[in-house]
This record gives sequence, structure tokens and C-alpha cells, in this order.
Amino acid sequence: MSGHVLGVDLGGSNVRAVLADGSGRVVADAAAPTAQDEARAVVAQIVRLCRDVATSGAVPLSGVAAVGLGVPGAVHVEGRELRLAPNLPSFVELDLAGALGDELGMPVVLDNDVNVATLAEQRHGLGAGVADFVFIAVGTGIGMGIVASGRLQRGATGAAGEIAYLPLGHDPFEPGHQINGSLEEAAGGVGVARRYAELAGDAVSALHVYDRAAAGDPHARAVLDEQARAIALAVVSAQSMLDPALVVFGGGIGSRADLVARVRAYVGRLTRRQLAIEVSRLGERAGLIGAAELARAHADGQLTEGLRQ
Amino acid sequence: MSGHVLGVDLGGSNVRAVLADGSGRVVADAAAPTAQDEARAVVAQIVRLCRDVATSGAVPLSGVAAVGLGVPGAVHVEGRELRLAPNLPSFVELDLAGALGDELGMPVVLDNDVNVATLAEQRHGLGAGVADFVFIAVGTGIGMGIVASGRLQRGATGAAGEIAYLPLGHDPFEPGHQINGSLEEAAGGVGVARRYAELAGDAVSALHVYDRAAAGDPHARAVLDEQARAIALAVVSAQSMLDPALVVFGGGIGSRADLVARVRAYVGRLTRRQLAIEVSRLGERAGLIGAAELARAHADGQLTEGLRQ
Repeated sequence: MSGHVLGVDLGGSNVRAVLADGSGRVVADAAAPTAQDEARAVVAQIVRLCRDVATSGAVPLSGVAAVGLGVPGAVHVEGRELRLAPNLPSFVELDLAGALGDELGMPVVLDNDVNVATLAEQRHGLGAGVADFVFIAVGTGIGMGIVASGRLQRGATGAAGEIAYLPLGHDPFEPGHQINGSLEEAAGGVGVARRYAELAGDAVSALHVYDRAAAGDPHARAVLDEQARAIALAVVSAQSMLDPALVVFGGGIGSRADLVARVRAYVGRLTRRQLAIEVSRLGERAGLIGAAELARAHADGQLTEGLRQ
Repeated sequence: MSGHVLGVDLGGSNVRAVLADGSGRVVADAAAPTAQDEARAVVAQIVRLCRDVATSGAVPLSGVAAVGLGVPGAVHVEGRELRLAPNLPSFVELDLAGALGDELGMPVVLDNDVNVATLAEQRHGLGAGVADFVFIAVGTGIGMGIVASGRLQRGATGAAGEIAYLPLGHDPFEPGHQINGSLEEAAGGVGVARRYAELAGDAVSALHVYDRAAAGDPHARAVLDEQARAIALAVVSAQSMLDPALVVFGGGIGSRADLVARVRAYVGRLTRRQLAIEVSRLGERAGLIGAAELARAHADGQLTEGLRQ
């Protein structure tokens, strides 16, 4: 245990940062809407938030051991670039870890936001003590974190768990579905909103589609039924390929009990095998907790799971 | 390296056994058609083949360190029972490793035939030195072996890689497709033969369907096209979930270059990401080589990958 660490959750809408002490307890936090102009502005913003939480926690930056950073999109195996992050297009090719490390003067460890949330789930959530489980995040898009044989899996290029590209939900041979992925078109928040707009002629957010379904709107119900069905197919795919003991759902949409209940019902129609499907109890702080854990693991020299700078 | 080991490949049609020396070199082999009456007869048959190869190799059974056994179907985590093995229904509930161990007087290590072939691929095949790859066996059925972070993955109950149950190829909501799995209905040899019989009204084996397609039979071509398309969807599913550096095909049908060429073409229509898709060079002996490797790993005390008796 080597003193304090910083955890940063970089999202398409918000950037959040925490300062955690050596035992993982959060000492201070801060957040801001993600700068939308260009990558350098986001780097400056992260640096500012890190300084703010360090000041709030009365810890000098020189006393912080490392920064863990969860980012939207697959992380290149060397952990220096963002790839496959359509929500943050300006980051293509930026050496984010390098830029932040130069500014903050400490090691920066970064990983995919879903992998980071999976790490939080493994250390502080329902995945604690479970050697084989998957975490499925449903929000703007959809992604999965895989723990197999007790270890977070990244694949050959860091793209393991990019289930947006599973050939499910919408026709995977349609080139238009290959940009964000056929499953994501059916199951992610952006896809749900788009599909609802096609059916109902009304552009609202995915969360509003949920409200309208609750109020009886048949188009909203149809779209959410398609979403749950597509996610259930992804769950059964994960079951058949990985045989996890547990599937944990999280993210802004994935944390909804009504979605998960619909998914469970479809899974029950697809297989007779038992499978525990639960909603994460870590809520929207999973990414932050996981980012701090990633930094702690680095600081403690245990980083088999994270990507070093 | 602890002397000789036995490797046994128990298939639905044939049982084969090898004696290998401490360096993994095959010293003697033997085979027989699988006894079809009941599990005890198969156990007696395996014992007989093991004694035969030991005699051929002039090694007493007391000088053999262990037996490795590849079996068709998922292996329970305790490694004592066969499950999900529709081609060998009589094995339900038999403690195969225990029965063989009693008869042969040595440790018996067993695993799924596809996992065993994957181990052979990892140690002697295209997967050597590749930390993340998958092996897809297509024969009577279809199955996958997963190496992730350098380690063969078994999942929570030993059913990892049972991709027969991927919700692809045929309607996964159809209860009839849930017995052998929707992908297996479209992609396995039995499913191919059944589909051809439905279309052409003529019951022939899957390999004959290949012959007829080569001779221009339009029904045969349609069925094989469906098969390649379903397998390509499974490959893209594995890519999206696991991000392997390599997909290796094997098995009686999976080793066919014409099938793999069709699969590659469909994969090219489904994703722009590069993925190496190759045919195993180990041929039908992969299961035997892998079974002997499983025994060697046990004998050398390195068995993190296999299941102990």
C-alpha cells in the first residue's frame, strides 16, 4: 500500500476524478462536463480535476503514487492510444497516457471504461471471489468486461469484450451496422433512440423511450423489447462461449431493473441452463472506483491486470 | 519429464490410444471402433487399448506416469463426469476417470476433446507462442477451445467453448434447436446432413453433401453455404468477445480448405478488422497428441490447465 492514488473516469458527457487513500477509501472527488472541442482540452481538464481533488484532500501531487484512467473505447495493448472510441473521435492517435504523465509527473495507467468497471466489480462488487464472470455495461453503447480464471481478459489487441460488434440484434451483413456494431445498434442507448425515432417519428433520448414505454407507448415498448431480446442473445452468447458463473449489468441503462428483468425473461426462453444475472450495486461510481483500483494495483506492483504506461 | 504417458481420444466412432515417451514422441498407437452398447464396455475397451500400446512399446503399465483422456462433451469441473455429450448418452453420470483409474492403477486426467486438441495446438501447432487464440472443431458437431492470456479457459463449470449453443445459424428461440444448439444445427455434420435431407429428400452424410456440392448439386451448395455463413458468424462472435490473434480450424469437416475459404469470405463481409483464420496442421491426431500432453502436464506437476482426477 503506497499512499494515495487518483482515479479518473473519462466519459463522453462527464469527466470525474477521485483521490483515494492507500486502503481504497475515497477522500475527495470532482467532476465536470467533458470538453467537447479537442483532445488537448480534455487532457488539460483531467489535469485540472486531478489537481483539484488533490488540493481538496490536502495531498500534494508529489505524494500521489499513480493515476488510473478509464476511457471510452478499446485501449491499445501498449496502453498509450485510444482506439474504437466513436464517442470521442478527437482522441484518435493521441498518446493520452504520455500527455497526462508529462503534465502530472506520475505514472498513468489507462484502460477501457468497461474493463475498469469490471475491475471494480471484481474487487468491491458482486464479482468478488468469482473466478469467471462477465460485466455488461449498457449506456450510450454496450460493452463487456470478461474475468476468466480470475483474470481480466484483454485479448490480443485490447479489444476483448467489444460486444457491440456481436452479429446479433440487427443484420450484421449490413455495412451500416458495422460502424458501431449490430448489437449496439439494437441495444445501446443511441441505437434505441434512433430506432424509436424511425418508428414514432419523434427524436427523444433512450431514457425518455423508457418513460414512454412505462406510459404505454406501443412504439417505445416495441423498441425496448427488441433491445432486451438482443441483449439476451448476447448473454446467451457469453454463456455458451465463456461459461461464466455470473453476469453483472451496469451502466446508465444496464442498471435499470426493468431492463434486466426483461433480459432474464428472454434468457429463460433461450436456454434451460441456470445463470445468475444481476444488477451491479456499485452504480455509476464503478468506473471511478475501478480507475482508483487500477492505480492502486500499479502502485502496489500487482499490475497483471492493467496496462502500464 | 517423468517417463512414459498414455493419451486416449474417445470419439463417438473410434477410440484411439498412444503411448508417448517423456519428450512427447509417440512410441506406439492403437485404435478400435467405439463400443456402442454401454459405458462399461467403453471403459473395458480403453483399458484394453492402453494395455495394447504399452505392450507394443515394451513399457509395463507400472512404468506409465498417467493417462490423458479426451472425451466428447463438456467435462464437469471435478473432472469425473461427462456432461452435454449427446453422442455418448450412456456416459451420463459415470465416473469415467475413477473407473479407468481403478482398472489401470494410475492417475487419469480427462478433458473435453476440443480442449485437448486446443492444448495440442498450443504446444505443437499454430497456437504455439500465441497468448490469445481459439480453436474451432467442426465434425459431427461444433466446439471451441479458448486460450486467453496464454491459458486454456474452462469457465465456471467446464462448459467454456460450447459454441454449439451460440444463438446463430438457426432460430435460437425454437426449443427444438436448444437440444444440440442452434449453431450446431446449422454448422455441425449431423445438422448439415439433416438440412440436406430436408431439402433434397435424400439421407447422406455431411461429407457426401460436400461431394455433391462439388458435383454441382444446388441443394448441397445451399446447405454448405448456410454452414459457412453460420460458422463465420461464430468466428466474428469470438473476435468481438475475445479478440484472439488467430482462429484455427480442425476436425473432420473443419480441416477442409474449401469450408475455411468460404468462412473467410463471409468473415470478410462481416468485419473490416483483420483476423488470421487457418486450418490446423495437426490433422486428426490433434486429440491424441493433446491427450498425451495433458498426461505429461499432470506427470510433470504443471497441470494448471487440465483437470485432475
